[in-house]
Amino acid sequence: MSDDITGRPNEHPTELTHFDDSGRARLVDVGDKEETTRQATASGRVAMSPETVTVVREGRAAKGDVLAVAQVAAIIGGKRTHELVPMCHPLMLTAIDVAFEIEERAIGITATVKTRGRTGVEMEALCAVSVAALTIYDMLKAVDRGMVIEQVRLERKSGGRSGEWSRGGADQ
Amino acid sequence: MSDDITGRPNEHPTELTHFDDSGRARLVDVGDKEETTRQATASGRVAMSPETVTVVREGRAAKGDVLAVAQVAAIIGGKRTHELVPMCHPLMLTAIDVAFEIEERAIGITATVKTRGRTGVEMEALCAVSVAALTIYDMLKAVDRGMVIEQVRLERKSGGRSGEWSRGGADQ
Amino acid sequence: MSDDITGRPNEHPTELTHFDDSGRARLVDVGDKEETTRQATASGRVAMSPETVTVVREGRAAKGDVLAVAQVAAIIGGKRTHELVPMCHPLMLTAIDVAFEIEERAIGITATVKTRGRTGVEMEALCAVSVAALTIYDMLKAVDRGMVIEQVRLERKSGGRSGEWSRGGADQ
Amino acid sequence: MSDDITGRPNEHPTELTHFDDSGRARLVDVGDKEETTRQATASGRVAMSPETVTVVREGRAAKGDVLAVAQVAAIIGGKRTHELVPMCHPLMLTAIDVAFEIEERAIGITATVKTRGRTGVEMEALCAVSVAALTIYDMLKAVDRGMVIEQVRLERKSGGRSGEWSRGGADQ
Amino acid sequence: MSDDITGRPNEHPTELTHFDDSGRARLVDVGDKEETTRQATASGRVAMSPETVTVVREGRAAKGDVLAVAQVAAIIGGKRTHELVPMCHPLMLTAIDVAFEIEERAIGITATVKTRGRTGVEMEALCAVSVAALTIYDMLKAVDRGMVIEQVRLERKSGGRSGEWSRGGADQ
Amino acid sequence: MSDDITGRPNEHPTELTHFDDSGRARLVDVGDKEETTRQATASGRVAMSPETVTVVREGRAAKGDVLAVAQVAAIIGGKRTHELVPMCHPLMLTAIDVAFEIEERAIGITATVKTRGRTGVEMEALCAVSVAALTIYDMLKAVDRGMVIEQVRLERKSGGRSGEWSRGGADQ
Repeated sequence: MSDDITGRPNEHPTELTHFDDSGRARLVDVGDKEETTRQATASGRVAMSPETVTVVREGRAAKGDVLAVAQVAAIIGGKRTHELVPMCHPLMLTAIDVAFEIEERAIGITATVKTRGRTGVEMEALCAVSVAALTIYDMLKAVDRGMVIEQVRLERKSGGRSGEWSRGGADQ
Repeated sequence: MSDDITGRPNEHPTELTHFDDSGRARLVDVGDKEETTRQATASGRVAMSPETVTVVREGRAAKGDVLAVAQVAAIIGGKRTHELVPMCHPLMLTAIDVAFEIEERAIGITATVKTRGRTGVEMEALCAVSVAALTIYDMLKAVDRGMVIEQVRLERKSGGRSGEWSRGGADQ
Repeated sequence: MSDDITGRPNEHPTELTHFDDSGRARLVDVGDKEETTRQATASGRVAMSPETVTVVREGRAAKGDVLAVAQVAAIIGGKRTHELVPMCHPLMLTAIDVAFEIEERAIGITATVKTRGRTGVEMEALCAVSVAALTIYDMLKAVDRGMVIEQVRLERKSGGRSGEWSRGGADQ
Repeated sequence: MSDDITGRPNEHPTELTHFDDSGRARLVDVGDKEETTRQATASGRVAMSPETVTVVREGRAAKGDVLAVAQVAAIIGGKRTHELVPMCHPLMLTAIDVAFEIEERAIGITATVKTRGRTGVEMEALCAVSVAALTIYDMLKAVDRGMVIEQVRLERKSGGRSGEWSRGGADQ
Repeated sequence: MSDDITGRPNEHPTELTHFDDSGRARLVDVGDKEETTRQATASGRVAMSPETVTVVREGRAAKGDVLAVAQVAAIIGGKRTHELVPMCHPLMLTAIDVAFEIEERAIGITATVKTRGRTGVEMEALCAVSVAALTIYDMLKAVDRGMVIEQVRLERKSGGRSGEWSRGGADQ
Repeated sequence: MSDDITGRPNEHPTELTHFDDSGRARLVDVGDKEETTRQATASGRVAMSPETVTVVREGRAAKGDVLAVAQVAAIIGGKRTHELVPMCHPLMLTAIDVAFEIEERAIGITATVKTRGRTGVEMEALCAVSVAALTIYDMLKAVDRGMVIEQVRLERKSGGRSGEWSRGGADQ
């Protein structure tokens, strides 16, 4: 684990905006921010044995589609972000898109969330991915309790004062 | 990534219990299961740069305690599991315990959940860990957007028909 | 049951907007839609025996007002639409109005919902009616378990790209 | 609409249990009721044009499975009953099973719910059916706004002090 | 303000059970507690001008029943306690009863909650009272923004390890 | 208790806006109101014995920070206002700030909420204070069940058609 795993840390860490000067947690004031189009994409994966991946692939075709359930759960989860993460603002999400990729030893998850609002949707994208991963785990845990949720991370964001951000090269 | 990362896959994968014979998702019938004491422990971590770890450590002492907020979020998140994961049963949780460990390049998270009930609390423990991780990410994202939520996994469970389970040796 | 019961089906069914080209469910992108005033009215009824209608009418006057409870439930239900219907966007509702009509063998329900937003409020109006109907059933079920929730349907909508819509003549 | 449509009204309507003697709504005391296995089945349908039924049938096979989304929504909706219907007790549901039948001019919905508890699950079964119906409407409304949710009703229940109940003959 | 206002403080304050030895907040383990019948009654009041009390009294008779809405809100609020108060356990409430008293310069509120469970329902009774008070404020605030929610407090509880408790004499 | 306790009652009480002409509760139409910056501050206190205040003060320093938990609960509670208070509109809150003051015989609570929207945030500020107070009670009730939640009230508001309001002099 090194710096490249955590992407591009700021040279000069700004203050923790979710706390005021006396250290009290707060829902930070975004009332003066502009209402713009904001978008974020996050990804993650559920690592599992090839045998378990086969259960997912075969179920998708026939007897039980794990990923169809996870798709719905992810969208609902994205909409509930401000209920789960205490310092997240409620937001009028305008789009949530979730995709899965069946790999040899994992299910990959990608979620993109959009809004017109005063704060970004990074957390909404990360929440959608996390809830999808938890749902996949739940549906498959009778087969394989050893699965691991891995690499849940922001891929890119756009819009708002901090502008564009995308994960750098080394860790991809 | 190899088998040992995903622990101990079953030799003979059982059916996907969350689907019936025709492939329809369902809340599986646990009415005939015994009401016993059940317990599960899950863990995970948020990987970040050493500079960001320092922000957490210093904030804990003085100007903004990220982990105190994550602690509350994790407990609330564990209680909301059946709202987030579609095929999870509602359960009367009797205990949730969440602990953090400040590492050199990560915050480690461990959650233990207990119930007296007819089904296990693995998902509740995993949800508590995930919501803690998401909250930590949210509180620190102004400093470091490159953080990664990693290794969210079940450590051990006890109680119920499937009895004891704990993660094997190689991947610990 | 014939075509006139289901109103005016489109001649050329458009695509299912809640799915993308590969068939994945999604919260469809409404970010480019205009923020306009939108309104929808839905109706429905709970069919019951004349004796049960009498219980409602007498309770309203004296010993237990079923419809006062259903009124509150309908408004709360309308606000929760995006939590119940997976592909519904969260919306800032600006008005919900619910009315009941005591008929000879039924309680009629009408709900009108308004918003300033990027997507319509048909589902919010239908949800308000459905939750009112379920609440009426619940309050009266000790008296009459045979009640039937009937004819829950959109009456009219206005605003947004698809403009005005109102239920045609034959089925009214 | 006649008596047979609303099943078997009680000869001697009992009091409205959700109100006390002075007419105040209350969560009626079930603490002295026995904790037994209780089960209820409800049904309903979404009437639509044959063309819209075709969209559902073809989407199921290929480009967008409306019923897979409605399945998940119904299960989540059943679990949320006590949040939607004000005088419903929270309950530890032990099973929810939802099935769809594609008819010529409708989608039929059946939901069965079980619990071990002190009060019945009629409302949970009716809620699961209603939320499934609303979700089907939502997914198809771009194609056909004239759809009608019909015949949402209890089919049978068992367990508890009031024992067995099933809808009589004439209206089936 | 003196001791008698806060009732009967314990001579020897026990530890704060919601924290562990290292000061971490937790959902305290109640798994070993007996499942018994538990009951709690709380009260409170919304102080307002006599003119505003008149609005409530007249509305109750005719044009808008503030207390009927507050009644429903209180019951829903009591059921949501474990979502609002972070360290409260989810509980299967078996009864909630809410009553109002119209005084000369206030609306008095009393709520009684029962459960069969492993922990008490003091918080549920206090939550029901608080949500009733907030709803009364909301419904009347266009008339009188100066209203004050006062004296929200536990009146008595029974059941569980700590047994009977009731508010002493001086402050009643 | 006199007029000065309830601030400044309107000379000419306006109608109860949450009811229509026939007395039905409704989510009042705010669609024609301007979207402006609105702000409200509420306060309240939990009265307790000096010994219990000492437990809070010492826990804050060392073994269990009651107020850190209440801080998070208050912010979540403020965001949930429209779920708790039936006739409150959903709102995109842009800021929530909660502060505590440790007094000799009480914990004082102040909450300020902001939005850009079509209706005010008085209820959100009052909800945040109430949930903070309930959480403080919960965390300390093992020590002192006699605590009393007192003086929950609006301090001031700005923005919107009714403009500025602040609590008058005598009762402060």
